[in-house]
Amino acid sequence: MNINYIRPLDFKNGRIEMQHGSGGRVTAHLINELFAKAFDNPYLAEGNDGAVLPPVSGRLVMSTDSHVVSPLFFAGGDIGSLSVHGTINDVAMMGAVPLYLSAAFILEEGFLLSDLKRIVESMAHAAQEAGVPIVTGDTKVVEQGKGDGIFITTTAVGMVRDGITLSGNLAQAGDKILLSGPVGDHGMAVLSQRENLSFDAPIVSDTAALHGLVSAMLDSGAGLRVLRDPTRGGVATTLNEIAQQSGVGMLLNEAAIAINKPVEAACEFLGLDPLYVANEGKLIAICAPEDAVRLLAVMRAHPLARDAAIIGEVLADSHGFVQMITRLGGRRIVDWLAGEQLPRIC
Amino acid sequence: MNINYIRPLDFKNGRIEMQHGSGGRVTAHLINELFAKAFDNPYLAEGNDGAVLPPVSGRLVMSTDSHVVSPLFFAGGDIGSLSVHGTINDVAMMGAVPLYLSAAFILEEGFLLSDLKRIVESMAHAAQEAGVPIVTGDTKVVEQGKGDGIFITTTAVGMVRDGITLSGNLAQAGDKILLSGPVGDHGMAVLSQRENLSFDAPIVSDTAALHGLVSAMLDSGAGLRVLRDPTRGGVATTLNEIAQQSGVGMLLNEAAIAINKPVEAACEFLGLDPLYVANEGKLIAICAPEDAVRLLAVMRAHPLARDAAIIGEVLADSHGFVQMITRLGGRRIVDWLAGEQLPRIC
Repeated sequence: MNINYIRPLDFKNGRIEMQHGSGGRVTAHLINELFAKAFDNPYLAEGNDGAVLPPVSGRLVMSTDSHVVSPLFFAGGDIGSLSVHGTINDVAMMGAVPLYLSAAFILEEGFLLSDLKRIVESMAHAAQEAGVPIVTGDTKVVEQGKGDGIFITTTAVGMVRDGITLSGNLAQAGDKILLSGPVGDHGMAVLSQRENLSFDAPIVSDTAALHGLVSAMLDSGAGLRVLRDPTRGGVATTLNEIAQQSGVGMLLNEAAIAINKPVEAACEFLGLDPLYVANEGKLIAICAPEDAVRLLAVMRAHPLARDAAIIGEVLADSHGFVQMITRLGGRRIVDWLAGEQLPRIC
Repeated sequence: MNINYIRPLDFKNGRIEMQHGSGGRVTAHLINELFAKAFDNPYLAEGNDGAVLPPVSGRLVMSTDSHVVSPLFFAGGDIGSLSVHGTINDVAMMGAVPLYLSAAFILEEGFLLSDLKRIVESMAHAAQEAGVPIVTGDTKVVEQGKGDGIFITTTAVGMVRDGITLSGNLAQAGDKILLSGPVGDHGMAVLSQRENLSFDAPIVSDTAALHGLVSAMLDSGAGLRVLRDPTRGGVATTLNEIAQQSGVGMLLNEAAIAINKPVEAACEFLGLDPLYVANEGKLIAICAPEDAVRLLAVMRAHPLARDAAIIGEVLADSHGFVQMITRLGGRRIVDWLAGEQLPRIC
């Protein structure tokens, strides 16, 4: 065997082998032929173990997420686009402009190169659409049975806008709570794919990068206190987190919380509460009461928040209870979900 | 069952359960009781999905690595300390001061909480010793049999020193090649642990954060072109990468490359070439010939490079061949290793 000969990557029938993670020539080949081509940008092209980026000045923001969603492909997206959107959104929720992404792959021996290519191209597309390049990365391979196809960890850095301070501990009694659209789409899209359920109408993940919407909201000058994307655990968990961080209570209006019909039907069928189901393209905003209507108008003018609504308000309550007026006019506690939640939804 | 009741974490006999990754209250409990306590810093304590950091100004550097080392614990370190050192080193090799780390965990259902605690505390210790805080993170859980205990992906950001430009494509004919110490310690420490081999003398991983050493080297004002840590694939692979990036050849002097006796014996026993075995606390420096001796003195004055040596020089050679004068006076090509390399060494 000529040790200088590297087999071309077979993107039709080829599979990941242990040596794709060895750090040697075969790894370099995979990186050059797949990742560097798809993510094409000058920082990555330098080929170093890290990226040197242009000068910045201001408050830095950093966020990271591992993605282990199963199945890898679902209506509306895949683990690739999800891993770009999710991490960009975390940075955007801090009031920051996302600038750069890193991507680290843990591949299982035997994983189809065709699936890897499809995922990497989906990431590249999502990153390009969002205007946030993937500037550095890493590839590891584990033996068959020690992973699950592919896990992707993305990290984003960004710069906070001048004069903006958003944090989960800044909600105040009297503030209004806004939600950018219907809940539960992502979680139910993944679940129905996983369980091979089909409903009358298809359920499509809402996965999207929200930094453009956030930018419009910040431009409005409205008195924003908190932005948060209700992913794992859904709207209920996110609001409980904020209530705890800020030491306040909340009162929600169930009638104001939109749910797409197929999602509602699927949740009913499976006995799930859509308030606890993950979203990947929605945000919760908490703002000063006097600015809520103006902020709502700005949100509704953006394509990713056409169905935005004011869904409740913040109360003085040191216990941090989140309560809800139900559609029937009753009142109930929207608690943290202590038991089983949908696993591997992102 | 009272849904407000969360079982205390049992760090003696407890195990990771799927709900530790659900994003709900049980996840929050794990984060608060383990990660936030161990990594204790004000950015993480904010409890948001990302960290807002103090103002910075200058050229940003970003690097990421997934860690899948097996076994998780080995002489001289564990996956926790390794995941801190490895990523700090990648940033340091760009001539940057590492500032912040993120850490994302993919845990396998059933993983011992006692092992997780030991690893997290080791990370915390390594980060504190290096002066680089872990400011944000993520935790996911996959079903038993879909992971391998724990995978850790760390990302580091740093700022490049003013006036410094290091890159793998800057080596020039005539430059000297320096190596900071003996090769192969990390790879052989992991391998001997994995294979339950015991040798007369113990083999201990060299895992260490190199940013202090790099800082001293940059302070010297020597004309540095390239810094690189020879991890996966070892010194041979790293030098081949640089030769390819810079479009130059290299001539090494085998007699100048130090190997600890137990590592040499173990490599001989297992039929491995130590030049291809991973290091986690060594660096290769390529510098202008007139500065080599001065740089060497600076390195030897640092505790992590007491055995530094000039191991070769850069040649004009558009083929990018790395050659070596052997101890017996012959000449051989030090090629990329095309075949099997040690898997899961970092």
